[in-house]
Amino acid sequence: MNGLSEEKSGQELFALISELYPFCRSITGNGVRQTLEVLQKTIPVVRHEVASGTPVFDWVIPQEWNIKAAFIKDPAGRKIIDFDSCNLHVVGYSSPVHQVMEFSELRKHIFTLPDRPEWIPYRTSYFKDSWGFCMSHNQLLSMKDGKYEVLIDSSLTQGHLTYGELLIKGKTSKEVLISTHLCHPSLCNDNLSGIALAWQLARTLSSVPLKYSYRFLFLPATIGSIAWLALNEQSAARIQHGLVLAGVGDSGRSTYKKTRKGDTEIDRAAMYVLRHSGEDFEVMDFIPYGYDERQFCSPGFNLPVGCLMRTPFNQYPEYHTSADNLSFVKPEFLANSFRKCLSLLNVLERNAVYINQNPKCEPQLGRRGIFRAFSERTGGPEQEMALLWILNLSDGTCSLLDIAERSKLPFDLIWEASELLLQHGLLKATAVQ
Amino acid sequence: MNGLSEEKSGQELFALISELYPFCRSITGNGVRQTLEVLQKTIPVVRHEVASGTPVFDWVIPQEWNIKAAFIKDPAGRKIIDFDSCNLHVVGYSSPVHQVMEFSELRKHIFTLPDRPEWIPYRTSYFKDSWGFCMSHNQLLSMKDGKYEVLIDSSLTQGHLTYGELLIKGKTSKEVLISTHLCHPSLCNDNLSGIALAWQLARTLSSVPLKYSYRFLFLPATIGSIAWLALNEQSAARIQHGLVLAGVGDSGRSTYKKTRKGDTEIDRAAMYVLRHSGEDFEVMDFIPYGYDERQFCSPGFNLPVGCLMRTPFNQYPEYHTSADNLSFVKPEFLANSFRKCLSLLNVLERNAVYINQNPKCEPQLGRRGIFRAFSERTGGPEQEMALLWILNLSDGTCSLLDIAERSKLPFDLIWEASELLLQHGLLKATAVQ
Amino acid sequence: MNGLSEEKSGQELFALISELYPFCRSITGNGVRQTLEVLQKTIPVVRHEVASGTPVFDWVIPQEWNIKAAFIKDPAGRKIIDFDSCNLHVVGYSSPVHQVMEFSELRKHIFTLPDRPEWIPYRTSYFKDSWGFCMSHNQLLSMKDGKYEVLIDSSLTQGHLTYGELLIKGKTSKEVLISTHLCHPSLCNDNLSGIALAWQLARTLSSVPLKYSYRFLFLPATIGSIAWLALNEQSAARIQHGLVLAGVGDSGRSTYKKTRKGDTEIDRAAMYVLRHSGEDFEVMDFIPYGYDERQFCSPGFNLPVGCLMRTPFNQYPEYHTSADNLSFVKPEFLANSFRKCLSLLNVLERNAVYINQNPKCEPQLGRRGIFRAFSERTGGPEQEMALLWILNLSDGTCSLLDIAERSKLPFDLIWEASELLLQHGLLKATAVQ
Repeated sequence: MNGLSEEKSGQELFALISELYPFCRSITGNGVRQTLEVLQKTIPVVRHEVASGTPVFDWVIPQEWNIKAAFIKDPAGRKIIDFDSCNLHVVGYSSPVHQVMEFSELRKHIFTLPDRPEWIPYRTSYFKDSWGFCMSHNQLLSMKDGKYEVLIDSSLTQGHLTYGELLIKGKTSKEVLISTHLCHPSLCNDNLSGIALAWQLARTLSSVPLKYSYRFLFLPATIGSIAWLALNEQSAARIQHGLVLAGVGDSGRSTYKKTRKGDTEIDRAAMYVLRHSGEDFEVMDFIPYGYDERQFCSPGFNLPVGCLMRTPFNQYPEYHTSADNLSFVKPEFLANSFRKCLSLLNVLERNAVYINQNPKCEPQLGRRGIFRAFSERTGGPEQEMALLWILNLSDGTCSLLDIAERSKLPFDLIWEASELLLQHGLLKATAVQ
Repeated sequence: MNGLSEEKSGQELFALISELYPFCRSITGNGVRQTLEVLQKTIPVVRHEVASGTPVFDWVIPQEWNIKAAFIKDPAGRKIIDFDSCNLHVVGYSSPVHQVMEFSELRKHIFTLPDRPEWIPYRTSYFKDSWGFCMSHNQLLSMKDGKYEVLIDSSLTQGHLTYGELLIKGKTSKEVLISTHLCHPSLCNDNLSGIALAWQLARTLSSVPLKYSYRFLFLPATIGSIAWLALNEQSAARIQHGLVLAGVGDSGRSTYKKTRKGDTEIDRAAMYVLRHSGEDFEVMDFIPYGYDERQFCSPGFNLPVGCLMRTPFNQYPEYHTSADNLSFVKPEFLANSFRKCLSLLNVLERNAVYINQNPKCEPQLGRRGIFRAFSERTGGPEQEMALLWILNLSDGTCSLLDIAERSKLPFDLIWEASELLLQHGLLKATAVQ
Repeated sequence: MNGLSEEKSGQELFALISELYPFCRSITGNGVRQTLEVLQKTIPVVRHEVASGTPVFDWVIPQEWNIKAAFIKDPAGRKIIDFDSCNLHVVGYSSPVHQVMEFSELRKHIFTLPDRPEWIPYRTSYFKDSWGFCMSHNQLLSMKDGKYEVLIDSSLTQGHLTYGELLIKGKTSKEVLISTHLCHPSLCNDNLSGIALAWQLARTLSSVPLKYSYRFLFLPATIGSIAWLALNEQSAARIQHGLVLAGVGDSGRSTYKKTRKGDTEIDRAAMYVLRHSGEDFEVMDFIPYGYDERQFCSPGFNLPVGCLMRTPFNQYPEYHTSADNLSFVKPEFLANSFRKCLSLLNVLERNAVYINQNPKCEPQLGRRGIFRAFSERTGGPEQEMALLWILNLSDGTCSLLDIAERSKLPFDLIWEASELLLQHGLLKATAVQ
């Protein structure tokens, strides 16, 4: 499960982001379908459609929103805002409008970022009948009184909410969930980076033998995960570990946000990988705010789903603005996130609880050729210690990850030593695995 | 349950202390009755009398001690010590004496504080037949050889131990205990301050709707709490939370001494209030020494009773001396202690465990007008977070105080948000409340 | 259980080490028997013999090794290495050899310490047919090409593994295990120091009344403890606390290595004693490497056996070299280790869980003359506090050691106070003791 070279991996991730960047995604509509079509060229992700009006727990699937064009023409008839040049210009889920109006009236529908006068904000207005434009504050300042022609050629219809799903089967039906949101228009870190990382994981895991089954979800945020959970409660019960991927391409340090339970195997595996990455990192306690872990970790599910990011949502100025563009994410950061994510899954795949088959005193490793027979002046090397730690702690209460943490030896060394002991019949897997 | 203005509250507390200061209290006798009579002018406290000789667990109610007069006359016949001028001059529970004796003999019955030559110590001699005088060390030094006339006109008779009790009924019969000792003569911080604070709480709680019932005890220390516990084991079993009040008027920082269990709701509420007071404070672990929490926290009861003080007993030089007088306690410190105590009770009153009625995924708060529908660029304000935290953690294992602590949001904000969610049917109280 | 004066104790310990120093011990053979014969002059240790070929768990008792002589003669016929002058010169368990060989061939059988050119290393080759010599690196450098006569007059025969055992019976059949290894030739700290300490403990405990029974084991390392455990599983089940003694005579600070469980009574007693020793000390977490605690703490036994050392194995340059000689251990360090060991056993002997017979409120100590009746201005002295702490915490869940730790009072004071309360019928021992 080694994947690609770091450089090649970064290039591929960035290339996918570049291809998906122009589409106008929202929580429903054709932008989501276009995005899934691109993914389907390389991974067998299945498109699901949930009809508008379908009740999903406390919510109802909304009308489908699509948009063909939008502009503002100034009193001289010049197009000063054009949806075709940047899909962030229109507030998401804006209702259709075509009207000539005074600047003072139009002004009420314009959103800007006075503190970042060159950037266009990203705004939405789900579940409410309204419309609006987003633009740079500098552009707003250049607008004068007079009559403006305003067009938003959008539609809100009885349609569907669209999401993508891919199950890669492993040895057991126990599942690892990889979830990422795909409802944002031309924004790169949030969340084309997460989509790309999930896609690369799916490609990598398809070609290797797996212990767990892996379920990938490409969902519109909030309503998408609520819909999936409402329609797939049985699948949800199979989730042993889960990870939400979002904002994984910026230059910040890696951040892991813990599950609601806070001390599950994925929490410990993620913290283990970050601690041993040799790089700076952050671990956040769970809070009921953020991405779709909010729904997976709601008390009625309480699934062990964490979240892997770089700089957390809302903690970088480019967040939800036009500055979250193709310059803001870099191949090297994407590849770095991908490598850590793979290391984390590697720990989950290899982690196990074994039982020492010779629990009374140490077995004679030397006789089996596992141990050097000639006693040494200095203590045994790390591998000897790995063998002794596994034998000592494998009483059915400790996993290999527990042993790695208590012994302070590398997880992969512990795993290799456990394979050696398994081959010699000195360990046995517990029934539960 | 907001009570009075801080200034008015301090004045009232100080006025009561001034009124009670002159009485000669002891563990029995008329001083205690006088004190209760003053309280009965404003709160319906009930006076109880327990006859001398009554067995109370390992103890027996002692004879009642009263004193009319006491003096020492020097060889020239001048009264150099007069009980009327200061009741600390006589060792508490001194047996009667009227005798002329040599200075060398009298000296054995005189107690002073050589390190604090101007102060008179406070001493008692319960359960032992003896008598003595307390005076300033300077006065002792001025005494010369010769014959002194000594009078202690006291009586030890088959009488009663007196205490006061007041039950303010709330919605449930579960009780909060407020206990304070009233056996000290003219000493202000220890413990007229505690008596005054309990009295002010009783006045305040009488006029507001309450969840808990509140039991106020005005007891002689040790023997009083032992007597009450021995005679009221069934009432003791109703105590959910308890607080001993003592030494709450000096200029030191507030100190909370934990219950024997150490992590009960009152411990957590008290620490919460002190941590959020914006002032310096101290939390002491339980020790089996101090005030009547010693009895309430004896292993056979192990009640969740903490103790609120300012400078702990025995840690200020004025403790148990004539310097613990009306100058030593200040209205502002009394009012400050009262405010914190009320905040603590407020947390207990408002704390509750609720169950999220919509535990699978988040409920759609926007649709109910609880949440702003228009999604914002920046994260929700504190109230939104309060709503999300309550919904996420209200699985029956977390109280509002737990949620306040985990979310790091103010308890009152969490409580307000819980009221909003209750109104919308999104929460339900647990059966146990 | 006070033992001897520190000076006398140190002299006796050192004298025993000096007497045992010359013998050539190994995991089997006459050196072990000679060592036990010396001990048998002063303590009734029983010699056990386990026949070669006996299966003991995953191991088999090896052939018995003995050696009469060994030398290397240089091309000029001079004995340059002679076993008689230092038994470290021969690799332990060397098979017999008598041969004339070229230096280049002999060189393959010579072990030195290039970093410590004046010291002779200690090496063994159990369970493998080979032979070798150890010498100083300087001596190796002085050897020239030519033919060398090599003799090792050793024997490997169907014999026995020898170990010593001594049970000192106490009031109960519950046992404290004291184990030490006796398989090293002329090395003082590792482990004549441990043998001497165990011997001194045995002498001391023989003459005092004891709560526990004490089982002393003088075992060849690893195979000896495995053999004992395999042949004495029922005895092993009686072990309540255990201590491996090794490397207790060097100048380093005392080190306690925790049991596998990590929080047993012996762990807490050992840490208590070291913390209160007024000297620097180290506490190591359990690792499955070191001395025979590896076997006692294997998961199939998981006995509460810790290890008392000074500088840990392998952390001093003299370890397993000729420099671990009679100059390396000092009477004062031996006596210091002995004293701490005795203190530790003292805590185990005196520790108990009592039940307060008067759990509701405090008993009236004054009436019984336990407490001074005259109330004091200042807090009670330490003994009063000890009484109050014991009464408060003796609810069946706290041992005297727990109470000492929670009260921060000295364990011996707590014990004395508990004896006083027992005498007055205020405490009762729990049934389990």
